[in-house]
Amino acid sequence: MQHSQRPKVLFFDVNESLLDLSSMKKHVGKALNGREDLLPLWFSTMLHYSLVTTASKQFTDFSNIGAAALQMVAKNHNINLSTEETREVLKNFSNLLPHPEAIEALRLLKKAGYIMIALSNSSIKGMRSQFKNAGLTHLFEQQLSVEEFGKYKPETEVYYWAAKKLKAEPKDCMLIAAHGWDVAGAMWAGFRAAFINRPGQQLYPLAPMPEISETDLLKIAKKLIAL
Amino acid sequence: MQHSQRPKVLFFDVNESLLDLSSMKKHVGKALNGREDLLPLWFSTMLHYSLVTTASKQFTDFSNIGAAALQMVAKNHNINLSTEETREVLKNFSNLLPHPEAIEALRLLKKAGYIMIALSNSSIKGMRSQFKNAGLTHLFEQQLSVEEFGKYKPETEVYYWAAKKLKAEPKDCMLIAAHGWDVAGAMWAGFRAAFINRPGQQLYPLAPMPEISETDLLKIAKKLIAL
Repeated sequence: MQHSQRPKVLFFDVNESLLDLSSMKKHVGKALNGREDLLPLWFSTMLHYSLVTTASKQFTDFSNIGAAALQMVAKNHNINLSTEETREVLKNFSNLLPHPEAIEALRLLKKAGYIMIALSNSSIKGMRSQFKNAGLTHLFEQQLSVEEFGKYKPETEVYYWAAKKLKAEPKDCMLIAAHGWDVAGAMWAGFRAAFINRPGQQLYPLAPMPEISETDLLKIAKKLIAL
Repeated sequence: MQHSQRPKVLFFDVNESLLDLSSMKKHVGKALNGREDLLPLWFSTMLHYSLVTTASKQFTDFSNIGAAALQMVAKNHNINLSTEETREVLKNFSNLLPHPEAIEALRLLKKAGYIMIALSNSSIKGMRSQFKNAGLTHLFEQQLSVEEFGKYKPETEVYYWAAKKLKAEPKDCMLIAAHGWDVAGAMWAGFRAAFINRPGQQLYPLAPMPEISETDLLKIAKKLIAL
């Protein structure tokens, strides 16, 4: 059900939502003896272990978790990668391009008066590089990294923390993301949500459905501007 | 570092640790148009979403999460599966065979006087069927399902809850599992741990190393009996 009122704050997920992960396929594939098809397994393993970290009351940098996940996937395919080699691969996370429509969509939303905040599992330093290299910095009022809070999305408290940072109630916040788990977690925390239905991404069938689901961010922006 | 004292209670993970998941490959592959190679991606997605559920303060049956994960992986490969079809696939989780050496290893441990408890992400009912069908029931004093507690492993509190159920301190408990995340979570909760290094399974490089790591359960049992 689409609300008729504008959300007060828009929170944007970053990796795959704004930035295109497809270039990682080449880098991860190269490290895995050409097995580019293993990108989804690597990414899923990284996400799983980010939550293993939070569930265990620990915290480590997202890119180190990604490097560790890559090492595990490699070993399971009889490839030995050193920690150093996997961290080299993960450095490419800083150089992702924005999805083709993302910058125009963000500009339109900003022009329409929306308060726009990035909320990412990337580290503070990692996100800063990503935004600089992708030309996104000027479009956001704040870049919030879960590193500051010490727990990974979709832990409910992360969304509460982000809303509180903006002095907003969860019900007045909207998360915009290309990940079913992020949309689900945000809605379970009381946020509104929009899903960017990018290739290879699915809503979680056991969660509430978001009020907006479109194949790219421009279509979502147009719906939000019409409110 | 191997301790010289016996742990007071042995907790065993079930899926892949005691029971062989390889038959699921056939069932999952059949549902995914022959793509048996997608089993690890499906399993990783299921594990990720089990923790998404816990991080979001929700609870749903593990096999329903597995069915939803299968639906998502299928959609990402342009295969439409109904909820009913995926749940049919997941029913095969109840009919897994024990790994070849598991029963002998468990018998020896029991004979040596160990208190043995199953601690699984499977539902209460699901685990009961699994144990009955695999002939494991008589080897364990208790079958603990996370369903009773409402959070998935490796949430720290699950291990605390399990230890408390047995009136034991975490330091006197040992988890035995074939999953890096389970071993890591247990150790972060103060348990001792043994890793069953089965094919396709890896320790988590960013966690403490368990005191025992062997390629099968019989080798682990012999080390424990020697204490």
